[in-house]
Amino acid sequence: MTTSQAATIVEVGPRDGFQSIAQQIPTARKIDFIQRLYDCGIRRVEATAFVSETAVPQLADAAEVMAAAEALPGMDAQVLVPNLRHAERALAAGSKHLAFVLSASEKHNRSNVRRAPFESVEEYARIVDLLPQGTALRLNVATAFDCPYDGAMEPDTTFALLDALIDIKPDAEICPCDTTGRVTPDRVGALLSQAIRRYPQVKSWAYHGHDTYGLGLANVLAAWQAGVRTIDAAFAGLGGCPFAPGATGNVSTEDVVWMFEAMNVSTGIDIAALVPVACDGASIPGGVAGGRVRDALNPAKPCEDATS
Amino acid sequence: MTTSQAATIVEVGPRDGFQSIAQQIPTARKIDFIQRLYDCGIRRVEATAFVSETAVPQLADAAEVMAAAEALPGMDAQVLVPNLRHAERALAAGSKHLAFVLSASEKHNRSNVRRAPFESVEEYARIVDLLPQGTALRLNVATAFDCPYDGAMEPDTTFALLDALIDIKPDAEICPCDTTGRVTPDRVGALLSQAIRRYPQVKSWAYHGHDTYGLGLANVLAAWQAGVRTIDAAFAGLGGCPFAPGATGNVSTEDVVWMFEAMNVSTGIDIAALVPVACDGASIPGGVAGGRVRDALNPAKPCEDATS
Repeated sequence: MTTSQAATIVEVGPRDGFQSIAQQIPTARKIDFIQRLYDCGIRRVEATAFVSETAVPQLADAAEVMAAAEALPGMDAQVLVPNLRHAERALAAGSKHLAFVLSASEKHNRSNVRRAPFESVEEYARIVDLLPQGTALRLNVATAFDCPYDGAMEPDTTFALLDALIDIKPDAEICPCDTTGRVTPDRVGALLSQAIRRYPQVKSWAYHGHDTYGLGLANVLAAWQAGVRTIDAAFAGLGGCPFAPGATGNVSTEDVVWMFEAMNVSTGIDIAALVPVACDGASIPGGVAGGRVRDALNPAKPCEDATS
Repeated sequence: MTTSQAATIVEVGPRDGFQSIAQQIPTARKIDFIQRLYDCGIRRVEATAFVSETAVPQLADAAEVMAAAEALPGMDAQVLVPNLRHAERALAAGSKHLAFVLSASEKHNRSNVRRAPFESVEEYARIVDLLPQGTALRLNVATAFDCPYDGAMEPDTTFALLDALIDIKPDAEICPCDTTGRVTPDRVGALLSQAIRRYPQVKSWAYHGHDTYGLGLANVLAAWQAGVRTIDAAFAGLGGCPFAPGATGNVSTEDVVWMFEAMNVSTGIDIAALVPVACDGASIPGGVAGGRVRDALNPAKPCEDATS
């Protein structure tokens, strides 16, 4: 590998991490974390989600957090939306980058948004119709590999959904997600390689994975080797479910950055600056932290972990 | 991948894990752990080391632990030895499988055994001359990829040492070790692929890695993809250094078994039976545990971790 290679990290801690924390994080603290992550070199963030405030009270401050993230020069701040109504809210609040999510698994999609996956495809088309000129779009395909209810997904099921989705907006960034953390690198590599060949019209692929079974980095690497250059990660490995002890979160940003930089793949992120931010992230009350690099680079004083 | 593939796990917790724990573990408890690991299907173990009792008082009971491991039907129990004198002790105690260790890095080898690496090659030859018919030999090449003092090792340095070592006993099992946990999967794959091509006379290759930076499984997978079929791992991910907080241990046996089985690579090990043993391993006073699968498969009641 040469030093000219680069990976883009999308920091999803402020959305996927924070939403898993039951105790309310003050809005100012969320904004401060985003500022500090920016100061480490992070230039893409999933800043929040526009979702039901009843279902996810933690993200009721979405508009304020999004505005603060967008105010950072050069920061690309995407916000998650599960349906048309919340997409409208996000656009009304000034979003320049929506991330729509649906699930490849019928059971998981019904559980999340009470729709069949192909009904969510129609919803996606309605959102695309609504987008003002210049609004960027990420498409997150949850349970693309594995479903918490049904186990391993047939690739054909995922491809049937992508067949319908991709031509609605070929310049959307497509992100197959390992929602459960149970996929293995062979399957990540196989599905993503096949997808990249099957949909040459897609210009940007991303990968989103969890580290529940310790395969977080191995799966990220498999995605990279398949040709994916945009990787989701959460500082401090946040993202575990507070209602399911032992469930663990997103692959940690500091681990992903450390791996890529050690392989001479540039991320633009200063790992030394990131470690103290990740340590503070790991100490958010109610959070479930993960990842190894934070403690490995901080041996004299291991981070306090909210799970300990 | 087909289900006919198989990986052999060498459980190194009783040596590499226990030696890192300052508080003495009762001999009966060590033997009980080995019995329970055997009951999960483990058939290779690095049961202990014959080393200076002054330097490593934890392993002063080597002969007794080794005898108990060897008494288990079908268990292949290797014991680590750093020099001729301790090899003689191990053989006198009845060892049927020695594991000699030397370091590719001059500084690390001098720090460990006060010899240059090529002086350890001569010591290795003397041990080979001493072996009774039928005694198996593993050769562990520590710092084959990375040295705690000098950083990344030049592959040529490691190959120069292997050139000298391998023809002394071509039927020894060769195990390049990532001692620091800092190697990345690209370098694991490159060195092992090259070694397998360079030394066709070697029948068995093994890989030994640590998970300090979260790359444990990714590196094991890279070794597997390079053609290595024997993997060292420690239950509960034991192996951190009690004198260096934040340093973390071997890749955990339960994580490796979970990964391989999920990829349809048979290990012969019952993961459901292994998890409670790993939980007990993680609770050894003074131990530093690692790995994710133990808690992921035990969500209702996360393991108590001695590091918490």
